[in-house]
Amino acid sequence: MAAAATLLSVRAAPALRLRGKGTCRLLSCYASSSPPPPSSGEGFSGKVGFLGLGIMGAPMASNLIKAGCDVTVWNRTKSKCDPLLSLGAKYESSPSNVASSCDVTFAMLADPESAIEVACGANGAAEGMAPGKGYVDVSTVDTATSKLIGKHITSTGASFLEAPVSGSKKPAEDGLLIFLTAGDESLYNRVAPLLDVMGKSRFFLGDVGNGAAMKLVVNMVMGSMMVSFSEGLLLSEKVGLDPNTLVEVISQGAISAPMFSLKGPSMVKAAYPTAFPLKHQQKDLRLALALAESVSQSIPTVAAANELYKVAKSLGLADKDFSAVIEALKAKEHNSQP
Amino acid sequence: MAAAATLLSVRAAPALRLRGKGTCRLLSCYASSSPPPPSSGEGFSGKVGFLGLGIMGAPMASNLIKAGCDVTVWNRTKSKCDPLLSLGAKYESSPSNVASSCDVTFAMLADPESAIEVACGANGAAEGMAPGKGYVDVSTVDTATSKLIGKHITSTGASFLEAPVSGSKKPAEDGLLIFLTAGDESLYNRVAPLLDVMGKSRFFLGDVGNGAAMKLVVNMVMGSMMVSFSEGLLLSEKVGLDPNTLVEVISQGAISAPMFSLKGPSMVKAAYPTAFPLKHQQKDLRLALALAESVSQSIPTVAAANELYKVAKSLGLADKDFSAVIEALKAKEHNSQP
Amino acid sequence: MAAAATLLSVRAAPALRLRGKGTCRLLSCYASSSPPPPSSGEGFSGKVGFLGLGIMGAPMASNLIKAGCDVTVWNRTKSKCDPLLSLGAKYESSPSNVASSCDVTFAMLADPESAIEVACGANGAAEGMAPGKGYVDVSTVDTATSKLIGKHITSTGASFLEAPVSGSKKPAEDGLLIFLTAGDESLYNRVAPLLDVMGKSRFFLGDVGNGAAMKLVVNMVMGSMMVSFSEGLLLSEKVGLDPNTLVEVISQGAISAPMFSLKGPSMVKAAYPTAFPLKHQQKDLRLALALAESVSQSIPTVAAANELYKVAKSLGLADKDFSAVIEALKAKEHNSQP
Amino acid sequence: MAAAATLLSVRAAPALRLRGKGTCRLLSCYASSSPPPPSSGEGFSGKVGFLGLGIMGAPMASNLIKAGCDVTVWNRTKSKCDPLLSLGAKYESSPSNVASSCDVTFAMLADPESAIEVACGANGAAEGMAPGKGYVDVSTVDTATSKLIGKHITSTGASFLEAPVSGSKKPAEDGLLIFLTAGDESLYNRVAPLLDVMGKSRFFLGDVGNGAAMKLVVNMVMGSMMVSFSEGLLLSEKVGLDPNTLVEVISQGAISAPMFSLKGPSMVKAAYPTAFPLKHQQKDLRLALALAESVSQSIPTVAAANELYKVAKSLGLADKDFSAVIEALKAKEHNSQP
Repeated sequence: MAAAATLLSVRAAPALRLRGKGTCRLLSCYASSSPPPPSSGEGFSGKVGFLGLGIMGAPMASNLIKAGCDVTVWNRTKSKCDPLLSLGAKYESSPSNVASSCDVTFAMLADPESAIEVACGANGAAEGMAPGKGYVDVSTVDTATSKLIGKHITSTGASFLEAPVSGSKKPAEDGLLIFLTAGDESLYNRVAPLLDVMGKSRFFLGDVGNGAAMKLVVNMVMGSMMVSFSEGLLLSEKVGLDPNTLVEVISQGAISAPMFSLKGPSMVKAAYPTAFPLKHQQKDLRLALALAESVSQSIPTVAAANELYKVAKSLGLADKDFSAVIEALKAKEHNSQP
Repeated sequence: MAAAATLLSVRAAPALRLRGKGTCRLLSCYASSSPPPPSSGEGFSGKVGFLGLGIMGAPMASNLIKAGCDVTVWNRTKSKCDPLLSLGAKYESSPSNVASSCDVTFAMLADPESAIEVACGANGAAEGMAPGKGYVDVSTVDTATSKLIGKHITSTGASFLEAPVSGSKKPAEDGLLIFLTAGDESLYNRVAPLLDVMGKSRFFLGDVGNGAAMKLVVNMVMGSMMVSFSEGLLLSEKVGLDPNTLVEVISQGAISAPMFSLKGPSMVKAAYPTAFPLKHQQKDLRLALALAESVSQSIPTVAAANELYKVAKSLGLADKDFSAVIEALKAKEHNSQP
Repeated sequence: MAAAATLLSVRAAPALRLRGKGTCRLLSCYASSSPPPPSSGEGFSGKVGFLGLGIMGAPMASNLIKAGCDVTVWNRTKSKCDPLLSLGAKYESSPSNVASSCDVTFAMLADPESAIEVACGANGAAEGMAPGKGYVDVSTVDTATSKLIGKHITSTGASFLEAPVSGSKKPAEDGLLIFLTAGDESLYNRVAPLLDVMGKSRFFLGDVGNGAAMKLVVNMVMGSMMVSFSEGLLLSEKVGLDPNTLVEVISQGAISAPMFSLKGPSMVKAAYPTAFPLKHQQKDLRLALALAESVSQSIPTVAAANELYKVAKSLGLADKDFSAVIEALKAKEHNSQP
Repeated sequence: MAAAATLLSVRAAPALRLRGKGTCRLLSCYASSSPPPPSSGEGFSGKVGFLGLGIMGAPMASNLIKAGCDVTVWNRTKSKCDPLLSLGAKYESSPSNVASSCDVTFAMLADPESAIEVACGANGAAEGMAPGKGYVDVSTVDTATSKLIGKHITSTGASFLEAPVSGSKKPAEDGLLIFLTAGDESLYNRVAPLLDVMGKSRFFLGDVGNGAAMKLVVNMVMGSMMVSFSEGLLLSEKVGLDPNTLVEVISQGAISAPMFSLKGPSMVKAAYPTAFPLKHQQKDLRLALALAESVSQSIPTVAAANELYKVAKSLGLADKDFSAVIEALKAKEHNSQP
């Protein structure tokens, strides 16, 4: 495994610690701002900034505050800060001001453009950065964007950590996200207690870019699995079985996966309430195909799956949940198209 | 869902009942032969035959005996009966004799040919069958074989239940199999307490053939998922990530499946100790493609996956575990291109 | 090439001979029934039987008569013999009678069932066969059927040649068929002058079954090519090019094929007048996939193409021309997504 | 067909005109520089520039000179101009000088970078352009590059025509190229006599970019066909047929294509002398997949084919002929890799 060397350290939060989170995490964070820390290495000392309070950022920041951390927030639309302020957060009027007043600053932005502007633009976080400070970008961006932001931040002497999360709204609220981090390892170790407040596990994957790549591979496997599952649902139904029973049978065996149990029942009803938009899943497959091409790795089921997401897009399902890809496998009668 | 009508009843054993199995099941089986039964419908009254004591049959029969059932066994190689006899089982010298001396007879044979011979051949179970008796074939056979056996059995006035299991050696030993049954529903209800001793859940799927079809669809999704997972493992490694980390990251998210956690680490080491032979997985994909063709259902990722299992077979991996399909995705350098 | 040994001889009719067909072929056939033959080995001596006068058989028999051969015909529906009788053919009332009164007998039947009945059934050709006689089955049947017929014929001491043709109605009329023969090589040499009357080239491929296999491989490549071409037509149109121009551009380069020029213009108009039914093309792909599986050969584009023919079948296009597979690639807007 | 409007005019050179090329074309070109022209619209009046005298450019320019045109050449490496000068061409020391001294200037460069530099760089053709002059880029470049060059040229008031060719060295020498043009239609009409000297047909496809797109679609169909053909060759061999016979049989039927007859025999011998490098074919498939994704068109056989070209690349065959993709379908024994 030539790749092993790039994986500097991996630590999944022990399952046990996940029980009774409230207490131990509160302690570890409280500890961080009061000498001496109760357990060396477990606590975080310092002020925490949080930029971007959308569907993911708000519950993440909220969890930090509830755990007793000293949090300063900023959001483009200021009103979104109010719920956090009422929980005890401080406010600063620009990313730059947040960064200069905090020890480490987290950023959770919607897309690469916003992530770049908030980090590198006028009054951006980089302007407030300095040696000794850290910037943790938990947004999901492409490798190139991540590297660009990292370059800006580190040029100030500060440290940078790329940390895209696996998990959506509910895991964010429950503090059960998975962090796929890469970049500065000492910053990783420093913010570990904070990551453990917001998530259930965290991985350090080496150089900046590896976090984005890992997320892409996971989403690629997910996209392909969803198509295979769809094929099974439709086949079972066509041969006279109840697809709901297939969902139940699968849920009890070796291929049981939360995604199947969660999405299966609504897919059987042809309902696709959006959790992860189909167009984003297709985009991830496209990027994964490009990544695979760059290393000449054949990924034929992914290639086949991608063609179906394209069909689903042309069926007008781009903004539905990615489970709507099942519609691409339903042939409609030729002569009586509605 | 036009298919709904064919699903007469489905009942997964409640999770709660799985705790403290030993006691309650022993009671329910004991009860079945002593008036009055402790709970109507829970107990099984009568003698149980078991034909075929191989890698699956032996632990299944053993569990029945341990639960207090009155079990009579037969196996082509008689010596394989000994461990069961020492547990308290009785012995008969032919399938016919077992069937005539028992109320319901189970059969777990290795392949369609054996299943047919034991049920329909000379001194086969059918010869000992009669109205009021039941035959439960838990072997994995194709639809046509199952229908043929069912026809022979029911022509004697006895009842027939097709009941292939999902799960291999370990679940058989632990009494955690999943039964995919079809055929005579009253026989299904009658043997339910016995199925609950051997398995963790059971499904009744309607007409004979539906059990085999359901198992095929599940295995089809499994085979395709294994290829997508393989693509992810190889891609992660080629781009410089540690594939073991991918296994770990996947294990914590929405696509977490026992199969990935179980097989992933050995796949990374290119080790494929056989649990489910690759040639059987490929055969199931072939049968699933035929099933899909019979109803004109497109299953493109399965079709793509099947091509890779074929490559793996031609690489000499037919008898390895089906996870060895990952080898089909590893391009080998050509050394002597003209 | 381990396969080379099985190919006993191949001879494509020299291009030159194709010019001025009428004369030289007439001579060679005339010669065959009049001593002495003008060129040893070129002529055919004896009476020719022809069973089955459908869309293919009628023009083939007609070409033999016009070339001066002594032809005796039979057809289930006798009236179809009339045009041939008016050209000079003789008539017999059963396949058996044709076979007993002729030196070699050709059969062109619609499907395996008819081919078997005409050869092996009551009053079938086999009843009229004897040592020294030959039976040439030019029907398109599967390998198993061909072997069964061959066994029946050779058990009488007669010789058997499997000789499916490549080409449809028009080439049959024009004497431009391609014969893919296998079986008895001396019979092949004996009927070569007759094959040259009906076709433009002929191949001897070894053991019975090889003719059917060769036809399957050719049709498999054809089916896959048709899908690739369809993908090109639709893509060109979607990006704003005229698909008719694509047809024209392709017709002038390295991938120019008669099929593209012939089918392209009607495909652009979504018209699919049946020359080769889509359901037959799909069946051939299925058989080719089974053939490939039997030797563990991966054929991924064929597998992908087959899935589309299945979609086309479920769109109600089974009886249209196989070029209608293009419809399977046209995604239709969903109007009432919940 | 919404696309029809974009196709302003198409004219394939009449088949008849291809006979006796020499004479009529010489006349039409001679005519262009001497009053009065023999046939209005057929001749070209003026001086012709030619930039880039590589494997394609040299024979193309040579054909213009031999047809009597007044040609001025330039090449980065001046010595490559010598053969043309000895045929009667004039020389200028920069693209700019060629452009300013000629009425229309052709450019045949190796890649987008060279094409841009020669047209838009220092002393580039654009500097010598002016209203009334024309620039015809016959290089194969991507759409974006073509549009960039077009913008530079037309900003001088001159006209621009994109005109990538289909066909390689031999067709260039024989004057049998196919021009896929787009851009300024009056320039197209003006240079038509020159295109007819160098090619056997020409298409005008509307806006700049359409020429490149058309070439991509043609190459995409070609790449996919090559894989299907490879699958057929290997399958025929594995089932005991002679793949050379398959090549011959195919050459006589509906799917006969020059590419199959040309490449088949060497593919059977595992020889792949490079005519079109495999890496370029794979690149074209990648670009075609991107083009298809931009319009959500599903192209599953192309996607499957692309995966095989990737395998072939990782086998070290990137610089071999694209027919070497057949190697990607040959599974090598797992235990005894040579």
